[in-house]
Amino acid sequence: MMPPSPIRKLVPFAEAAKKRGTKVYHLNIGQPDIETPEMALEAVRRFDRKVLEYSHSAGNESYRRKLVQYYHKSGIEVSHEQIIITTGGSEAIQFGFMACLDAGDEVIIPEPFYANYNGFAVAAGVIVKPIPSHIEDGFALPPISAFEAAITPRTKAIVICNPNNPTGYLYSAAEMETLKNIILRYNLFLFADEAYREFCYSGTHASAMHLQGVDDHIILMDTISKRYSACGGRIGALVTKNKAVLDAAMKFAQARLSPPSFAQILGEAAVDLPDDYFEATKAEYKRRRDTIVKRLNAMDGVFCPNPGGAFYAMARLPIDDADRFCQWLLESFEHQGKTVMLAPATGFYSTPGSGKNEVRLAYVLNVADINAAMDCLDAALNIYPGRTTTGA
Amino acid sequence: MMPPSPIRKLVPFAEAAKKRGTKVYHLNIGQPDIETPEMALEAVRRFDRKVLEYSHSAGNESYRRKLVQYYHKSGIEVSHEQIIITTGGSEAIQFGFMACLDAGDEVIIPEPFYANYNGFAVAAGVIVKPIPSHIEDGFALPPISAFEAAITPRTKAIVICNPNNPTGYLYSAAEMETLKNIILRYNLFLFADEAYREFCYSGTHASAMHLQGVDDHIILMDTISKRYSACGGRIGALVTKNKAVLDAAMKFAQARLSPPSFAQILGEAAVDLPDDYFEATKAEYKRRRDTIVKRLNAMDGVFCPNPGGAFYAMARLPIDDADRFCQWLLESFEHQGKTVMLAPATGFYSTPGSGKNEVRLAYVLNVADINAAMDCLDAALNIYPGRTTTGA
Repeated sequence: MMPPSPIRKLVPFAEAAKKRGTKVYHLNIGQPDIETPEMALEAVRRFDRKVLEYSHSAGNESYRRKLVQYYHKSGIEVSHEQIIITTGGSEAIQFGFMACLDAGDEVIIPEPFYANYNGFAVAAGVIVKPIPSHIEDGFALPPISAFEAAITPRTKAIVICNPNNPTGYLYSAAEMETLKNIILRYNLFLFADEAYREFCYSGTHASAMHLQGVDDHIILMDTISKRYSACGGRIGALVTKNKAVLDAAMKFAQARLSPPSFAQILGEAAVDLPDDYFEATKAEYKRRRDTIVKRLNAMDGVFCPNPGGAFYAMARLPIDDADRFCQWLLESFEHQGKTVMLAPATGFYSTPGSGKNEVRLAYVLNVADINAAMDCLDAALNIYPGRTTTGA
Repeated sequence: MMPPSPIRKLVPFAEAAKKRGTKVYHLNIGQPDIETPEMALEAVRRFDRKVLEYSHSAGNESYRRKLVQYYHKSGIEVSHEQIIITTGGSEAIQFGFMACLDAGDEVIIPEPFYANYNGFAVAAGVIVKPIPSHIEDGFALPPISAFEAAITPRTKAIVICNPNNPTGYLYSAAEMETLKNIILRYNLFLFADEAYREFCYSGTHASAMHLQGVDDHIILMDTISKRYSACGGRIGALVTKNKAVLDAAMKFAQARLSPPSFAQILGEAAVDLPDDYFEATKAEYKRRRDTIVKRLNAMDGVFCPNPGGAFYAMARLPIDDADRFCQWLLESFEHQGKTVMLAPATGFYSTPGSGKNEVRLAYVLNVADINAAMDCLDAALNIYPGRTTTGA
């Protein structure tokens, strides 16, 4: 059974609230309000071909060659033949799973995790074995013993997202080495979703592609959606040095013909942004993180660990049921004509019952809006009928 | 096992031929040289939003409402809530299969058929049961007895493409009624791929959505790729009145977040093209069809039935093996510095051994180029080492 998206399943309730005239602050989805770089949009506006043709199934060669430069700047050395342009990061996940895994295979994912891994695993007939990470220690990588306890003869891969969605946790280089040892010892793939590579606030990014001696094990799943605030473009990439995986993924790429043309132009142009382009964006996200974490922890019964990267925070709230609460926020609550949309954390856990009093907040709005959204949340927690005393 | 695309698997050989300086006429892929409507491209160039945001997972509501008008002109009455915008027609096929079928279910498809149905069926764990249509009678709908002989308790659907890719066959209203009777009697879905709806040269288009009393059975799979010569946009649609299928498909739509934004703008603008827009395009394709069919049938040992729609022709050639021949055309042959790329028909049959002396030709090039490509083919058949005497 395909599970509904925790990020989007409440959309009809948000639409109804807006129709009633309520302002909804969207902290449910990683849709930044950061402007898409004007020079990249301008490249699309300058499109002067007469025919909007299919591109190569792996994406335009000129774009893949440009991406080689981009990755080089991040200390990732690949050739353009090791890159398949995908329709968003979503398709990179899909291709990765389908190219590397058979129905019945198992993948280990520290939970909570990006809910759509589950969806794509279900679609590929793959079984997700979650191992818990905990809000108390900021969702750090689980100990090696937890991985080993979950490994069976059907285990084929570990999936990580770094920096993490939904937790914001930034894996250290030491933790990446730990993962390297596990995948080598048990001959596993490491799927690394690095959609938020540029957004690290505490420390630098340790890419899975930096790991030495495990080239054939690493499948990088990437996207320009967050990097350039270009979510609607639907352009991502599957990057690997494993030739067999590339060959298998290309069959899926050919079946869907080609990735979208316009946004490939945008992505190619964006590689030429100045080297300091990300500084301002990162500073802005850091301000937002500091604001939202401070506001959340100041609320009675609320706990939010400080995320090291990406633009998500997980918070534990004094509520009976996050799904009920998030729906209630949209259906039955408003504060001065406004409310806030959050993602119930239950959808990010695959262990039933986990995350029932947690929510994910995407700090994709400006500081003023985040403060207004936090005002709503604070007021809501005071009157929510399902409030628990302790928040535990 | 995911089969390689018959349309694209020879691409590396074509690339090598081009590097050697050989001009390659691409009749292998349905990539028209017709210009994308300027007003639709212009709509994209006028994009003036600051942020390239995710759209609704079902696509922009404004676009879906516009499509209601488009379908109305084709005698198809649907609401915008019965339309899910997809990433190309490919994704409409994918969503349709995944929403309606379980692993182990069977679908009946008259063969030869669009090869990627096979790929998406494999990805969904669905078993394709081909029933033969024949080049001798122009690939008409197989008799009802052939369908009934293929039906088992696991049969869930029939898939048709009308007008047909790869055969160009245009199903008559009477044949569509035959299909209606079968799906009603056996409670099946009818997946109707109508990507080439506008391109009918002999008779008018009988849409599956015109059938009365089978609303819950019909899944329309559509695309703007051919309609507006906008293959690179990657915009299609899944259309159905079956609420349960829509709900299931929406989960897959949400998992991949949203369809590409830029090309939705293009598709929305294109609905406002004048009503006679397709006349010129259709006349041009008809000229090409007439040219290619005449040239093919004039070659010794070649037989090509006259296709009623789409822009494909299937031809039987006096050759030992279409895969070998098509590769040889790219690897070992040239005629005055030129060669032609064709799609071996074997990849459009799922019955092993079928189509070994057939190829698909997409008449997507102008008449002069088609004639030059036919000159190459004619010359090639004269010297191909695997030529058979009779062509039978």
